[in-house]
Amino acid sequence: MFDPVEKLKEFIRHPSVSTDPKCGDGMKGAQEFIAGLLRSLGFAVEVVATERHPIVFAERGGDPSWPHVVIYGHYDVQPADPLNLWKTPAFEPTIIGNRIYGRGAADNKGPLLTNVAAVAQALEANPKLPLRITFLIEGEEEMGSPSFPKFLERFAPKLRAADFVYLSDTALPNENQVVITAGLRGLALFDVHITGPKGDLHSGLHGGVLRNPIQALAEILATLHTPEGRVNVPGFYDAVLDVHPWEREELKKLGADEKAYAEFLGIDTFYPTPGFSPFESSRFQPTLEFNGIGGGYQGEGTKTVIPSKAFAKISCRLVPNQKSDAIKKMVMDAIRARTPKGVKLEFVDQHKGEAYVVVPPGRSNTPKDQSPVLARAFHATDQAVTEVWGRPPIYLREGGSVPIIADIKRVTGLDSVMFGLFLPEDNLHAPNESFNLDVMKKGIETTRRMLVALSKG
Amino acid sequence: MFDPVEKLKEFIRHPSVSTDPKCGDGMKGAQEFIAGLLRSLGFAVEVVATERHPIVFAERGGDPSWPHVVIYGHYDVQPADPLNLWKTPAFEPTIIGNRIYGRGAADNKGPLLTNVAAVAQALEANPKLPLRITFLIEGEEEMGSPSFPKFLERFAPKLRAADFVYLSDTALPNENQVVITAGLRGLALFDVHITGPKGDLHSGLHGGVLRNPIQALAEILATLHTPEGRVNVPGFYDAVLDVHPWEREELKKLGADEKAYAEFLGIDTFYPTPGFSPFESSRFQPTLEFNGIGGGYQGEGTKTVIPSKAFAKISCRLVPNQKSDAIKKMVMDAIRARTPKGVKLEFVDQHKGEAYVVVPPGRSNTPKDQSPVLARAFHATDQAVTEVWGRPPIYLREGGSVPIIADIKRVTGLDSVMFGLFLPEDNLHAPNESFNLDVMKKGIETTRRMLVALSKG
Repeated sequence: MFDPVEKLKEFIRHPSVSTDPKCGDGMKGAQEFIAGLLRSLGFAVEVVATERHPIVFAERGGDPSWPHVVIYGHYDVQPADPLNLWKTPAFEPTIIGNRIYGRGAADNKGPLLTNVAAVAQALEANPKLPLRITFLIEGEEEMGSPSFPKFLERFAPKLRAADFVYLSDTALPNENQVVITAGLRGLALFDVHITGPKGDLHSGLHGGVLRNPIQALAEILATLHTPEGRVNVPGFYDAVLDVHPWEREELKKLGADEKAYAEFLGIDTFYPTPGFSPFESSRFQPTLEFNGIGGGYQGEGTKTVIPSKAFAKISCRLVPNQKSDAIKKMVMDAIRARTPKGVKLEFVDQHKGEAYVVVPPGRSNTPKDQSPVLARAFHATDQAVTEVWGRPPIYLREGGSVPIIADIKRVTGLDSVMFGLFLPEDNLHAPNESFNLDVMKKGIETTRRMLVALSKG
Repeated sequence: MFDPVEKLKEFIRHPSVSTDPKCGDGMKGAQEFIAGLLRSLGFAVEVVATERHPIVFAERGGDPSWPHVVIYGHYDVQPADPLNLWKTPAFEPTIIGNRIYGRGAADNKGPLLTNVAAVAQALEANPKLPLRITFLIEGEEEMGSPSFPKFLERFAPKLRAADFVYLSDTALPNENQVVITAGLRGLALFDVHITGPKGDLHSGLHGGVLRNPIQALAEILATLHTPEGRVNVPGFYDAVLDVHPWEREELKKLGADEKAYAEFLGIDTFYPTPGFSPFESSRFQPTLEFNGIGGGYQGEGTKTVIPSKAFAKISCRLVPNQKSDAIKKMVMDAIRARTPKGVKLEFVDQHKGEAYVVVPPGRSNTPKDQSPVLARAFHATDQAVTEVWGRPPIYLREGGSVPIIADIKRVTGLDSVMFGLFLPEDNLHAPNESFNLDVMKKGIETTRRMLVALSKG
């Protein structure tokens, strides 16, 4: 049995930033690392080429009557910039206390290795474990999984033979409480580019004559929310469904503390969607966020120009029943209608993904035709969590997005059991990302027990 | 007599970006170049140390009864970025047709050398020219001349003995028409910094909970203009004076063509202060411009963060009778009052400068106590321009700023004759700056004639 922490260090050392063309070696290294590890566990590994970064598809076959789990993960990571804010090198794993620091430690290399280690332990104890296991590990999650739909179409026949998907790419509220994620938000991303004069101009000679593109951009962006904090785009909320009462009950079990959360974020005032608490807002409501803005002179001191261009990067998080294409169109139409004369507007489309919801067995809105193996997987996970963590999991929708989960459901019909493993303080997508090694250890034991229980039928 | 174009090439090769700490050698090189050139013409040169970049003060004394001109210029230049937009290297002077390309070619190295060459020619023709000449050449104009006030106080006794200041750091509307600048706009510059959460956050996990600093910044900036294009800050226009009828008449003589101007700028719609044409607006009205904006992820693709910080660089251009300190306070107060809850606001103060106006002799509002030598200087310049360019100059206020002109007036009482030499197409403060060598040649002859006529009394 390999040492999961040592393997995680090795995994982190590959700088696998999928959106950065300069990270080719890091992507290849991370992909070969995970493929090699699964091969060493006896899996039949296929490295499936795509237009960008290959998908690692690894199978442990068996009797068709055995339950069949597909374990999902991704070997790519977010960009590490701004590098100057990292206290340890982003791609040199560093253990401080019970945490391992490094880009990708929590998203998703640590949680993925947690599940690989659980499989390794289960198979070591019982090489004949009556369970079919397929690993599906992609390298484009952080760029919106552009190659995944084509892959899904091609592998749909194989995947349809499975029973459910199991993954750890969602969050825990704290290290004592597991959350099984019952839903994810969708995404709709694009950039807005505003062009004014054909080149940067001297703001003395020409100031007061024409519309400054930064001003035009600010005026457009400022229209996109109401003062109360709702997204101010016609139709934006039309498809949003009401929250089920059991979801609000589960959320209450979290015992989440607004004061502690505000302190963690470093803010003095929340700004949730009106009518929702902060914790409800990020889980049950859609958003329109500005992820970046730029234009003109950004250096030290001053440069008195009227810039030619300005841009903003926009992302919407969507909730079940909102459609990403429709939302993109609504927002773009609103921006188009609100763009003043004297500047040119262009959009650069980025990626998108649909929201997803899965209802555990025994709830008021559990589908009547829910697959028995999925129901058993939920029960096995619930029991393993209760044993290892000392209390049952909470079933909650969360604010993040794993768009391929909705794609898998649409193409193969498979639902997902999402066993969250990263913590709020893990700094996902930010400098000084880390992963809690105690959580990793308990996570391995939980998944191992779930697999063994599931195999026993 | 030196070759002015060869000397200009030498001058441009020194990358004298005063705001860039990495340009120490370039600043020193440019300062030593101009000091050496004036020494070679027989001037007594003093290099006056300041806290940042020294001022070159060069005197040609003489009989106290002789007229005494102070010729101003600056040896520092704007930053050259974005470098990738330059078609020739920014600090490698390149002649294409009748233009010399390079950062500082027009602002202010070319025009300054024009006047140095005119002095050299006049002195070569008559070494006993009965004219006292003082050169005052600073190295901090592009950073707001922070050392100039202290220098002025120290050199005020010497400068008060002079009659007027002569400079070429303003614009020509086209290469056939000289403008003597009768006024300059002031400046008030500062940066606005907005901080939301204490670090960048995952926009899925936390989106919909707190106020995004880019959103807050956009909402603040969007309030700073009315839809019609006036600055929307209480009191902003209170001190603005009415335009004198002769100023509108002079402006008409320009025969400026809005269509050609729009084409030059690359815009389809002007956006002047309501009630003013574009040409009036940039000369007679104040502005509030955004010179830069930044925050969050600006790279390729996407990064779904809620950024911790966002900022904007603001500059106001001010007209006579507006005071920079008062305007800064008004705008900052407005921003403070309009900053929403949930984010922190900080200002970083940048430089400032007062507006300036000088009225040529014989106008309805010419001061009754105007100095006779200043009046003679205006007449000599008018005549020299008429002879060399074939038509008299137009007297106009312009939109740019040379803040030290107002400082000189305040401290020493000296007014300035501003003989413009750069053209709209010279790309000041922008990539591919250039200077027209035909304008340089005519400029040398004009200033030479002015100096000779003035010396004759």
